[in-house]
Amino acid sequence: MVQNQVKLPTDLGPKLYEGKAKVIFQGDQADELILVFKDDATAFNREKTGTISQKGAINNQISTKIFEYLNQKQIPNHFVKQLSPNQMVVKKLDMLGIEVIVRNRIAGSLARRLDCEEGGQLKFPIIEFCLKNDKTGDPFINEDIIVNLNLATEQELIVIKDYALKINQALIAFFGSLAIDIIDFKLEFGRFKNQILLADEITPDGCRLWDQKTGQKLDKDRFRFDLGKVDEAYREVLERLESRL
Amino acid sequence: MVQNQVKLPTDLGPKLYEGKAKVIFQGDQADELILVFKDDATAFNREKTGTISQKGAINNQISTKIFEYLNQKQIPNHFVKQLSPNQMVVKKLDMLGIEVIVRNRIAGSLARRLDCEEGGQLKFPIIEFCLKNDKTGDPFINEDIIVNLNLATEQELIVIKDYALKINQALIAFFGSLAIDIIDFKLEFGRFKNQILLADEITPDGCRLWDQKTGQKLDKDRFRFDLGKVDEAYREVLERLESRL
Repeated sequence: MVQNQVKLPTDLGPKLYEGKAKVIFQGDQADELILVFKDDATAFNREKTGTISQKGAINNQISTKIFEYLNQKQIPNHFVKQLSPNQMVVKKLDMLGIEVIVRNRIAGSLARRLDCEEGGQLKFPIIEFCLKNDKTGDPFINEDIIVNLNLATEQELIVIKDYALKINQALIAFFGSLAIDIIDFKLEFGRFKNQILLADEITPDGCRLWDQKTGQKLDKDRFRFDLGKVDEAYREVLERLESRL
Repeated sequence: MVQNQVKLPTDLGPKLYEGKAKVIFQGDQADELILVFKDDATAFNREKTGTISQKGAINNQISTKIFEYLNQKQIPNHFVKQLSPNQMVVKKLDMLGIEVIVRNRIAGSLARRLDCEEGGQLKFPIIEFCLKNDKTGDPFINEDIIVNLNLATEQELIVIKDYALKINQALIAFFGSLAIDIIDFKLEFGRFKNQILLADEITPDGCRLWDQKTGQKLDKDRFRFDLGKVDEAYREVLERLESRL
């Protein structure tokens, strides 16, 4: 899956930002960025940190395949091309500063808030919003707050919710073909030339992925809750994905 | 303000429920309840407890006057009559199990989540929803979750949001005439014969009330954050209210 023209870190343009899972460099084009996926893993707002072997390369390749699939489904997104095993070229967006969470079943923070077991079915997918703010732990907000804080307009929120539900339908089908249930996932969006585009990554770092047969978790919950076989879970998702293509 | 027919606690029907600020008894009519307002105060999900002198009687009288005012404004609510200084007769509702928070300015949990000072202006009022669940600390939920959990229907949520904004307009005018800004407040709703009615209480326990001139807090934040003059603040609100009538 490795592209020919691999850029070494020293060949990259100026480093613009380092996040928990990726470093962002200026791309060759003014309106492009290079994302370098790291092996670093964090959870619970950086309270737990560690490394997952080959995560950067695995996540970059998973995300690449998913963006290519979403392109087929006409979901506008920032993906330009894969540059190396752990590098991706994307469009440079004006990011919205919010996280969009889509839930197909009850798990994670929703299970904790409802004080119930994970796995409960929902009547329809739930969309939630969080403010991207490490200092306050990415707190829950809602559409009234988003519009009040000028994080997005009402019109942009309509587009974002429409895309989120379409992406959900696409990902249910995509992971379903790998015998994986997508329980919930996090999306980020940004503006590019007045258009809303899907941004960031779609990987086991930000999705809950459960094996349809065994219920085994194939995502970052293995790292969060010390469930073991963390590296193997990420590799398992990539392997199923490559065997599909 | 005391009604003639004062019921002693021994005259009351069966006790149905005891909450943090009120005890609920069966009323004389099958479809009515008697609320007995307590002097007990709690904050931070019962982590802090105490007593505010005369709070029960003060809150009952404040809430009575507000419900009477909301009746004039045609906001359907559960209020039937004041029965004694700290007792109120209300309609017996099927409560929805959610809290509705209306915000006119940034304060409390919203200021903490946004990591900003209290008092910031909003472009328009914010409505938020919490699940009533002491065990999980009344967590934030949203409309998707409410409908999924069958806590309310989409149609009921439209009515609730409409009432919440109308109540907000009424309370801004009501407290404005007392030289008080209503910063935010919590509402609860229930069903009565297939109609949504405003329930619970509207008092300094569940509202943020700031003096327009001095900015002084006239609400439970004085108790929450040990600001002193707690009893006086509650009495101040009642006195301004009585002087208005």
